Amino acid sequence: MDTFQTLLSFAMELDRMKSVFRQTKIIGDDRFEDDAQHSYHISAMAVLLEPYAAEPVDLKKVLIMLLFHDVVELEAGDTFCYDEAANADKADREEEAAQRIYARLPSPQREELYGLWKEFEHGRSPEAQFAAALDRAQPVFNNYYGGGGSWIRHGVTLEQVLRRIAPIQNGSPRLYDEVRRCVDDAVTKGWIQKEARDGR
Amino acid sequence: MDTFQTLLSFAMELDRMKSVFRQTKIIGDDRFEDDAQHSYHISAMAVLLEPYAAEPVDLKKVLIMLLFHDVVELEAGDTFCYDEAANADKADREEEAAQRIYARLPSPQREELYGLWKEFEHGRSPEAQFAAALDRAQPVFNNYYGGGGSWIRHGVTLEQVLRRIAPIQNGSPRLYDEVRRCVDDAVTKGWIQKEARDGR
Repeated sequence: MDTFQTLLSFAMELDRMKSVFRQTKIIGDDRFEDDAQHSYHISAMAVLLEPYAAEPVDLKKVLIMLLFHDVVELEAGDTFCYDEAANADKADREEEAAQRIYARLPSPQREELYGLWKEFEHGRSPEAQFAAALDRAQPVFNNYYGGGGSWIRHGVTLEQVLRRIAPIQNGSPRLYDEVRRCVDDAVTKGWIQKEARDGR
Repeated sequence: MDTFQTLLSFAMELDRMKSVFRQTKIIGDDRFEDDAQHSYHISAMAVLLEPYAAEPVDLKKVLIMLLFHDVVELEAGDTFCYDEAANADKADREEEAAQRIYARLPSPQREELYGLWKEFEHGRSPEAQFAAALDRAQPVFNNYYGGGGSWIRHGVTLEQVLRRIAPIQNGSPRLYDEVRRCVDDAVTKGWIQKEARDGR
């Protein structure tokens, strides 16, 4: 295969992103969202909400990060964010998957896309922080506007949700405020469990 | 609603893109592809195949175009590209839908996204031509690697397919060659009908 065909073959492998299912459902629908739909949604959100990033961002870089951030799940599968056992070895599993997947690309796409995935995972650049904020906010909104979704199905607690959404503050304080408002209301509605030990 | 909330509300409306179904199926699956999955796929393809655009392109602009090119279908629905009756008034229906949809955005996003949609539809800039090439190539590959798909189901002819793929040449000659190779092979396999009148 020449370089073009290698790239096209990788592009066609991405069709499988449409069949990696997540725990979040589509609003008002009984279908579970898949990685392609999720990646689409947060990429479009990045375009709309760019003015609310904590710091100025290179939008092109944010979009490439978001379009490819879950590609490792083609090999590693989706890990539910509140499954603590599965999350213990998630980083190792995904690093191995990334090594295998990106090795199938020619240069310079191999280095560029692997590098952006690592940058996203490390979460230190303004682009990575804004991208992570969108990645963590969207499932909250889908659960909230879908009537509780995976929070109810899995008996998720406020403490777990607050830990999960904390990094949104670094990527977009305004988005964090809105996510937090939904989470607090979801507790009031009984969709998220308020643990006894938080004393309220 | 303040500006942020108006943008977020629009962003959440995009969840419905996951339920606008197309005629193309996911490869090796019986599920029809939806607009979110399709938009995801061609956006990721743009990142990978940018070096094969006919002219240098502003990739950020291409990505925004692709992420939003089908948003009009939230109101106008998907029009099957080989349904000639439905295509007769497609441009008018989609223009009306665009007027309604983009009016829900604040400035400057309203003007920017409506402008990019018009630019995509007119198909004259290098970005619009590259974006259109990807939009037309991906369903061909999904049909081809999926064993004939919508070509067989709808009895599509070679003449129809050649008309549909012709603009790919302007956006990416290399991509066109590959699409054409698949189409010719699909004719050999009997997935696309070779009309008697083409004289071969």
